[in-house]
Amino acid sequence: MLRDEFEWIKSIIPSHSHQKNLLMGIGDDAAIWSVDEDMDQVVCVDTMVEGVHFTRDTLSPAQIGHKALAVNLSDIAAMGAIPQFYLVSIAISPECTEEELHDLYEGMRKLADLYKTDLIGGDTVSTKGPLVLTVTVIGKVEKGKSLYRKNAEPDDVVFLTGITGESAAGLQLLLSKTRQYSFNEAETSLTSQHQMPQPHIKQGRLLAKSGFRTALNDVSDGIASELNEIAEASDVTIHIDEEKLPISSILKSLSKNERLTYQLYGGEDYVLVGTMAEKDFNQVVSEFDKSFLPLYKIGRVTERGETAVLINQEPLTKKGFNHFRER
Amino acid sequence: MLRDEFEWIKSIIPSHSHQKNLLMGIGDDAAIWSVDEDMDQVVCVDTMVEGVHFTRDTLSPAQIGHKALAVNLSDIAAMGAIPQFYLVSIAISPECTEEELHDLYEGMRKLADLYKTDLIGGDTVSTKGPLVLTVTVIGKVEKGKSLYRKNAEPDDVVFLTGITGESAAGLQLLLSKTRQYSFNEAETSLTSQHQMPQPHIKQGRLLAKSGFRTALNDVSDGIASELNEIAEASDVTIHIDEEKLPISSILKSLSKNERLTYQLYGGEDYVLVGTMAEKDFNQVVSEFDKSFLPLYKIGRVTERGETAVLINQEPLTKKGFNHFRER
Repeated sequence: MLRDEFEWIKSIIPSHSHQKNLLMGIGDDAAIWSVDEDMDQVVCVDTMVEGVHFTRDTLSPAQIGHKALAVNLSDIAAMGAIPQFYLVSIAISPECTEEELHDLYEGMRKLADLYKTDLIGGDTVSTKGPLVLTVTVIGKVEKGKSLYRKNAEPDDVVFLTGITGESAAGLQLLLSKTRQYSFNEAETSLTSQHQMPQPHIKQGRLLAKSGFRTALNDVSDGIASELNEIAEASDVTIHIDEEKLPISSILKSLSKNERLTYQLYGGEDYVLVGTMAEKDFNQVVSEFDKSFLPLYKIGRVTERGETAVLINQEPLTKKGFNHFRER
Repeated sequence: MLRDEFEWIKSIIPSHSHQKNLLMGIGDDAAIWSVDEDMDQVVCVDTMVEGVHFTRDTLSPAQIGHKALAVNLSDIAAMGAIPQFYLVSIAISPECTEEELHDLYEGMRKLADLYKTDLIGGDTVSTKGPLVLTVTVIGKVEKGKSLYRKNAEPDDVVFLTGITGESAAGLQLLLSKTRQYSFNEAETSLTSQHQMPQPHIKQGRLLAKSGFRTALNDVSDGIASELNEIAEASDVTIHIDEEKLPISSILKSLSKNERLTYQLYGGEDYVLVGTMAEKDFNQVVSEFDKSFLPLYKIGRVTERGETAVLINQEPLTKKGFNHFRER
C-alpha cells in the first residue's frame, strides 16, 4: 500500500534529462519539447496486462518495467528512429507494494538511460483488477528516412537482425517452472530473452542512415506474422529459405518441428525483420560487421500483386497471439 | 466477444486525416508526422479505469470514449496548445461487447473531429479485470507561448474560464440514481457536465495567443487542488474571494456549505483556472467577450515566498481524489 500519490510521483521525477530540447517534463499538465526541423517525429504506444502478457511467475517487477519500455523502443527501432521521450501510465492493482512499483520504474529507467530517453509524463491510477502498464515512446527520424512496411519490392533480400525462437522457448520454461526455479546456464539464456529483450535501436539506425529503401518490422508476434504484414503492406510474395533461418545453439537439440514452431511463430524476440535490394544489402552487411552485429539473409521477395509468405513453397500463415480470440 | 483483433483494428482506422503533416498513422510500427518549426510539441496521457473513474451506471460506452479524450484535450488546453493527434490503448474486459467498443471509439471520434485531431495509433489487448482506457494526445504551441503553472506572480488576477461544481453534483446524482433514471432538465444539465465535459481548447488558445504571461491549470481535481499546484510551482500566496466564485444557477438551492464543497473540491469540471497581470487581464476579457466566452475574476496573488491558497483568510488545502489513499 502506497503512502501518497503526490509523494510517489515526486519520487519518480528524473533529476536530470538527457534530451537538451526538453522544455517541460513531469510537473505540469503536459510535457513540451522543441522540435528539430530536419527530423520527423515518431510515436508509438503499447500496453502490458498482468495475467495476459506476464504473471508474477514469469517476470519480476523490474523486468515488467524493462519489457514494457523495450517493446516500445523496438517499435521505434522498426521505423529507423531515435527514441527521445517516454510516458508511463499505470493502473496499480491492490496487491502491488511500493517496493515493487519502485523496482518496476527502475527497470524502465535503466533501459531508458542506455538510449538517453527521458521520462516526461504519465498517469498513476488504481484498479481493482490486474496491473495494466501503458508506455508511450516518442522519437525522431531524419525526414524521409523512416522505414515502412510498404517498402518491399520484387527481388529484395529478406533479412533478420537476430535469432528468433529463444524468447518463446524461455516463456515455456517460465510457465512450467516459474522464475523462482534454478535454471541452468542455457535455460537462463532463454528465459532472459523473454524477460529482458534488448531493442534493436542500433540496427534500425544503421538501416535508416544507410539511406537505402528498406521495409522493416520488429518481431513482436513471430516472423510468420511480421512477414505477412510486410507482404500485405507491399503487396508482394515473400519466400523464406528454411535452411537459412539462424538457429539458436540452445534450441538445436529440439526436434526440427518444435524448433521451427518457435522460430516462425514464437514472437517477442524484438529483433528486426525486413527487405531491401540485394546490392544495398551487401553494403549494409559490412556496416553491421563494423559494429559486430549480425545480419542474416533468410529469403527473397518475388512477384508483386500476390500477397503471400511461403516457406518450402508452403504458405506461412499469420499465427501470432490474438487478444480477441484468447478471451 | 469480438471476432478478430485484426478485423477490429481495420474497422477503427480513420478514412481520412485532418492534419496535413501526418505521414503515417495506424498501419505500421509507429506513427510519423513532420514538424512545424515555429511550434513546440506537447504531449500528455491519461488513464480511466472501470470501477474507479466510471462505472456502467455513470457513463455509457460513448461517454467513456468522449471523456477519456476530453480529459487529455483539457490538459492540452491548459498548456495553450492545439491538439493534433491521439493514440488509444485499451485493455478490454471479458464483458465488453463489440457494439460497446464501437460506441466507445465513436465517442472519441466525434469529439476528435471537432478539434481536427487524428487517431494515429494505439494498442488493443485483453484483460480479465475491469476495462482500462489510456489516451495519449499530441499537440503543438507557438514557441515560447506555453502556459506553465510556474508563471504566477504577485498582484496577478486569479481567473476561471467557467463554473465549477456541476460535474461533482452530476456524479452524485448518477451514483444515487444511475444513468438509466429519468432526470429532469436541471439534473440532466448536471449529469451531462460529468459525462460529456467540453475541453476549453478555445479558451486556452485565446490565452496563449494573447502573448501575456499566464499561469494555467485545468480543473480535473477541483480548484482547491489546482490552485495549490499553481501556488507551489510559482511559490506564491493566492487569495480566493468566495463572493466572486461563479455559481451554477442549478446549485443555488443547495446549502452554502454543500455548494462550496462542490465548487472548491468537486473536480472534473475541465474549465481552466489561472493567473495573469491585471492590465493584461482586462484586455483578455474583451477577447473572450468577442467569442461570447466568460472569464471570471475570482481572486488575487499576493506575496512570493509563502506557498498557500486562502479563502476568507482560511487555508484552502489540496483535497482532490487520491488514487493511493482510496485503495
